Amino acid sequence: MSVVPPGGTIGILGGGQLGRMLAMAAARLGLKCAIYAPEKDAPAFQVCDSHVVAPYGDHEALVAFARGVDVVTYEFENVPGDAASVLSGLKSVRPSPRALSVIQDRFQEKSFARERGIATTPFALIDSDASLLAALKSVGTPSVLKTARLGYDGKGQKMVRANDQLAPAWDELNRVPCILEGFVDFTRELSVMAARGQNGQVACFDLVENRHENHILRTTLAPAKASQRVKADAARIATDLLEAFDYVGVMAVEMFETRDGRLLVNEIAPRVHNSGHWTIDGCVVSQFEQHIRAVAGWPLGDPSRHSDAVMTNLLGVEIDAWRAAAAEPNTALHHYGKGEARPGRKMGHVTRLYPLGLRPDG
Amino acid sequence: MSVVPPGGTIGILGGGQLGRMLAMAAARLGLKCAIYAPEKDAPAFQVCDSHVVAPYGDHEALVAFARGVDVVTYEFENVPGDAASVLSGLKSVRPSPRALSVIQDRFQEKSFARERGIATTPFALIDSDASLLAALKSVGTPSVLKTARLGYDGKGQKMVRANDQLAPAWDELNRVPCILEGFVDFTRELSVMAARGQNGQVACFDLVENRHENHILRTTLAPAKASQRVKADAARIATDLLEAFDYVGVMAVEMFETRDGRLLVNEIAPRVHNSGHWTIDGCVVSQFEQHIRAVAGWPLGDPSRHSDAVMTNLLGVEIDAWRAAAAEPNTALHHYGKGEARPGRKMGHVTRLYPLGLRPDG
Repeated sequence: MSVVPPGGTIGILGGGQLGRMLAMAAARLGLKCAIYAPEKDAPAFQVCDSHVVAPYGDHEALVAFARGVDVVTYEFENVPGDAASVLSGLKSVRPSPRALSVIQDRFQEKSFARERGIATTPFALIDSDASLLAALKSVGTPSVLKTARLGYDGKGQKMVRANDQLAPAWDELNRVPCILEGFVDFTRELSVMAARGQNGQVACFDLVENRHENHILRTTLAPAKASQRVKADAARIATDLLEAFDYVGVMAVEMFETRDGRLLVNEIAPRVHNSGHWTIDGCVVSQFEQHIRAVAGWPLGDPSRHSDAVMTNLLGVEIDAWRAAAAEPNTALHHYGKGEARPGRKMGHVTRLYPLGLRPDG
Repeated sequence: MSVVPPGGTIGILGGGQLGRMLAMAAARLGLKCAIYAPEKDAPAFQVCDSHVVAPYGDHEALVAFARGVDVVTYEFENVPGDAASVLSGLKSVRPSPRALSVIQDRFQEKSFARERGIATTPFALIDSDASLLAALKSVGTPSVLKTARLGYDGKGQKMVRANDQLAPAWDELNRVPCILEGFVDFTRELSVMAARGQNGQVACFDLVENRHENHILRTTLAPAKASQRVKADAARIATDLLEAFDYVGVMAVEMFETRDGRLLVNEIAPRVHNSGHWTIDGCVVSQFEQHIRAVAGWPLGDPSRHSDAVMTNLLGVEIDAWRAAAAEPNTALHHYGKGEARPGRKMGHVTRLYPLGLRPDG
């Protein structure tokens, strides 16, 4: 255990809205934050004690940053492996670079889960002509071809509707290692935000339901209306993953629920997550504070919710309606302090609260 | 109406825990904060976009500060009148310097309330031998002699147990203008945090009960257990005061409840207040956000509480128990990021949440 007491400094890689909300949560606990980001006007800079503007490949800047903080964490999963090793040579990096490295690779991520008996969507690796043929047999089509590694500028996904489209699709992705994911006949996407402390303590926030539009999260309903069995399964899956990774911090586990009530892990995010934003207003300790507590070696907070909640993202110019949103009853408005409202950009969110058990279906 | 939209900057005089929590609330709304404080390590500096270290008498620094912000507010009532006028010549100062100036003087404050038909504790001005004799007649003893103006380094109060102690007590206070306040046989102290927007909209948080130890607030119980009539009276008093001052921002009104259920105004604070800290965790919009909304010309937030709450201050070395406090269920820990834990210094607080109607008597 290494504890960062009040007055200590949390170093955060990434200065977007997640870094910003992490910094605000740390401040509640009397912890300072230093933010490292390449953009000179990152939103998190407005609320932190100090910041560094430098690319993630700048080893000198990383070393100086690490020297000024007590522990390092991050707001995004595609932290370059090089940066993670430079930093972990100097200070604890939490969650660990090992978890990060597994989760950065879609094939390793899903294999990790499968090897531990956790059901996932069907998948296969494609890194050769032979494995391409094998993937066609095991996963088939229709399916989605995705580059295994993250960080390809948000590109790197191809729909594959018929068997003869797979080879051309892989060519278009420059034959980099890919994963073929089978379609699942799911009824909805659920997710759970779970935390693990340095002492192994695990705390799961309530299971939630997520609704997307154009592949972007639109709304999170908290809690998900689900049977006790499904809720327990989700918490069990998240706990198993946390323990298998010897994880410290908050992890998001996105799952599909099938028509027959099974949960298939779709994606793991080694960080706080958009589908956990409702916890700021619906719980006494938010996902952001929970993550800070974990990485700082504090006891985890109570994850129980005091209110039901519906979180809705404000994308692009939707943020211009901030005034109307601010006037709504029982509603918390969160504005991320970003400049340009580009289409689809996450500019803020609103969380509407309801007494326990009284959340509308949305 | 002059509105500060997201991206704008709120200037805050004072960098203690109130300024810090105001800055964090502003950040939620996408507003930046600039903090002005004389201490070079003010706790609010850790969470704001920019800060100035200068004495409140430094006109040049005040002018530069005002030029960099869109509106000015403050975390403490003894802002020097000079500073308020320099700033209000350049930018809106909210709440207004007029309200500030009345409330800075205990005699003017209580007279202001009395003239509007609001009951106060008995009081009389002492600024001459003649008025001293008159005060003895109208208020009598036992009573408390207080300097009328704030800001005398926290000193300036004398118990007066018998009539012949009054003149010597006034001598000890250097015969500055004072107010003699009669003892009231009250059962408890209540307070209400109320806000008024630029459009005249008023929103009151629930009435709370405050318990003190050694003249320092120890615990706030939210809501106060009180009759509907007492609750309505308190909201009426706060609303009347807000309107009489043409006030913009959050105001705290402390009242004594007498044995026969009357409310007597004891003190008004033209700012966010320790007895409103519970709103951070008990309401969807806190007193801090409410204040920022008002001074920025935004709609006020919904002041209804989603949970009952008990707020307890952590004074001096009590903050050393932060780890135990962090581990308690249903509890929010707030650490102000201050350095030295001097005796009696407000270092943080905890808020324990309970479902509506289930708050223990504490």
